[in-house]
Amino acid sequence: MWAALEPVGFDPRSGGYRRHAWTREDAELREWFAGEAGARGLPVVTDRAGNQWAWWGDPDADGPGVVLGSHLDSVPGGGAFDGPLGVVSAFAALDRLRSDGVVPARPVAVAHFGDEEGARFGVACAGSRLLTGALDGDRARALRDADGVPMADAMTRAGHDPAHLGRDDETLRRIGTYVELHVEQGRALADLDRPVAVGAGIRPHGRWRFVLPGEANHAGTTALADRRDPMLGFAEVVLAARAAAHRHDVLATCGKVRVEPNGVNAIPSLVTGWLDARGSDEARVRSTVADVAAAVAAHGGGLTEESWSPSTEFDGPLAARLARLLGSAADPAPVLPTGAGHDAGILAAAGVPAAMLFVRNPTGVSHSPAEHAEPADCHAGVEALAAVLDELTR
Amino acid sequence: MWAALEPVGFDPRSGGYRRHAWTREDAELREWFAGEAGARGLPVVTDRAGNQWAWWGDPDADGPGVVLGSHLDSVPGGGAFDGPLGVVSAFAALDRLRSDGVVPARPVAVAHFGDEEGARFGVACAGSRLLTGALDGDRARALRDADGVPMADAMTRAGHDPAHLGRDDETLRRIGTYVELHVEQGRALADLDRPVAVGAGIRPHGRWRFVLPGEANHAGTTALADRRDPMLGFAEVVLAARAAAHRHDVLATCGKVRVEPNGVNAIPSLVTGWLDARGSDEARVRSTVADVAAAVAAHGGGLTEESWSPSTEFDGPLAARLARLLGSAADPAPVLPTGAGHDAGILAAAGVPAAMLFVRNPTGVSHSPAEHAEPADCHAGVEALAAVLDELTR
Repeated sequence: MWAALEPVGFDPRSGGYRRHAWTREDAELREWFAGEAGARGLPVVTDRAGNQWAWWGDPDADGPGVVLGSHLDSVPGGGAFDGPLGVVSAFAALDRLRSDGVVPARPVAVAHFGDEEGARFGVACAGSRLLTGALDGDRARALRDADGVPMADAMTRAGHDPAHLGRDDETLRRIGTYVELHVEQGRALADLDRPVAVGAGIRPHGRWRFVLPGEANHAGTTALADRRDPMLGFAEVVLAARAAAHRHDVLATCGKVRVEPNGVNAIPSLVTGWLDARGSDEARVRSTVADVAAAVAAHGGGLTEESWSPSTEFDGPLAARLARLLGSAADPAPVLPTGAGHDAGILAAAGVPAAMLFVRNPTGVSHSPAEHAEPADCHAGVEALAAVLDELTR
Repeated sequence: MWAALEPVGFDPRSGGYRRHAWTREDAELREWFAGEAGARGLPVVTDRAGNQWAWWGDPDADGPGVVLGSHLDSVPGGGAFDGPLGVVSAFAALDRLRSDGVVPARPVAVAHFGDEEGARFGVACAGSRLLTGALDGDRARALRDADGVPMADAMTRAGHDPAHLGRDDETLRRIGTYVELHVEQGRALADLDRPVAVGAGIRPHGRWRFVLPGEANHAGTTALADRRDPMLGFAEVVLAARAAAHRHDVLATCGKVRVEPNGVNAIPSLVTGWLDARGSDEARVRSTVADVAAAVAAHGGGLTEESWSPSTEFDGPLAARLARLLGSAADPAPVLPTGAGHDAGILAAAGVPAAMLFVRNPTGVSHSPAEHAEPADCHAGVEALAAVLDELTR
């Protein structure tokens, strides 16, 4: 399955992937998913948000099913595993059950959630947020990419009707339990010398956009005293974000910036920056964002929340049960929290029983071409996911 | 003439122009130039660097001519006047002489220099630098734009053969005197309440590119202590550049930045920034750049010179003569230096007699959609240029 995915959105310059929502690459990924489902005789349903569901069995007739899945999109310059490992492992786990002759007592699906990274329109987990109603349809349709294209237009051009975005109870009803396997984004498993962990929950996190206005002018003729140069304000905000992160013991990152007009000899007219902030509790994250907002305001700018995910605990008894299943009662698999957002967290926050499995990442590097998981650990992940599927469909 | 230029490269989002070298817009500007020349019965010669020359008379047979001209390209988000005012005024000044029945005693040309702003390949005045040999052909061919396209390929795609770039004595020999009219980039004329000035010289200036390496990783899972985030280094360098500019009493600007991968939730793997620095003397500019280079090095990066223009004085007796012509012996037109680079400066540095005229800019704003000159002042500029042409071709 990997071979067909490998070239899609590969960028030889960065050595990483560029797979953004509702692009040509996204369409190729959707075709790949439909092809894998078709090869297994599984009909594919695309929900109103554009998520794809390959069902084995009929959840409308036979009750909610066990859904395995993840996403296929990437951040710019992302790695090969973040997302696809979960979808590929889901198909592989299903194959494993079938080849073992197991006939599940409940319907089973492989799900492909769209636009998880939010790299194009700024809202992470847009597919699952639309599904649960955490993202409003009108707001989603109006989100714009860097070229000013609204999500509604991008969907339409990709052949998806954006008219019916919004909470989708018909689809939600079909999900009995959602299990998402993902490459670990951190080194906890490497330090523990274990191949697979069960997810405990997702730390609170969010994204904010800040806009610093300036006055375009010639860099070679405008006196320093006459300038309104927003690049200086941006520099101060970047440093203020790092200082606030230290102060409140959270993570804060300014990884993206857009400068207009971005000319060597032009004082910028506008700088737009983005803040990613996460932490162990919501109050610390909120305090950090307030400090950054104050720095932005001190330079005449404003800060807007693009997304916010409160602290999310996965189903505790389910996590404990899976940890025992993947280890033993005496030595269960590790149960780890994560600072990364996932569709499983969005579903859990909406009351869907959800669980995650993490596969060891030797360096912990993620959102980078250097992101990696050893083949043996990937196979262990499939074995674990197959065991979970077997357990939950008996 | 303005009406046909107005839509070329206009960007409704910024309200400014985007006219970069060897693009579709550039081709339209070249067609416009050829059309204006053709309408006046002037044959157009394109030199090896891609500059266009519309000759009235034969400089090879009748000796070097008086050349009026400027450029047509723009910075991203640039104004309508920077460049085109000089070319339009050149044609208009020539029309004025002809309608007055003047038959010049020397050949006359209108010149369109290519790639003056260097917005695409990073080297300003590339057309005149290639002509004089200040920019080496091999170096020019290898310059790359933001998409990695070499200048050689861009030229080839635009139908210009890049094989013969390099100092072009055949073309240089034809230029007796070069006179460039330009909208003022500053408020000196507004403060003096005069419509037109003569250029004294160009202050030393240059462009430097600095590269700050980092380590791509997930913004939500990588501990602050484990990060190599080059955005922090970029912020420090931006502030160091401003502090150095104050210290050495020069202008220093970081107006352009490129972040990879530029994702909200990705710690950047690489930040590339650009420095523009100019001042009243070379030592101050060099000291400023050395301070910025030290700040870059302190963050593990390196700084490279993209272009350097030493302090350039225009032909002093010529400037004084034109100032008297445009005013009187008792009250000559102002003679002003500028911090902006121009093709006239490149030619002057190569020993070509060169002069500039500046047209009043009420706000001084430049490299911005707000750049402006009043119609009456533009007409005064044409009158002045026609008077200069008449004077120099008697």
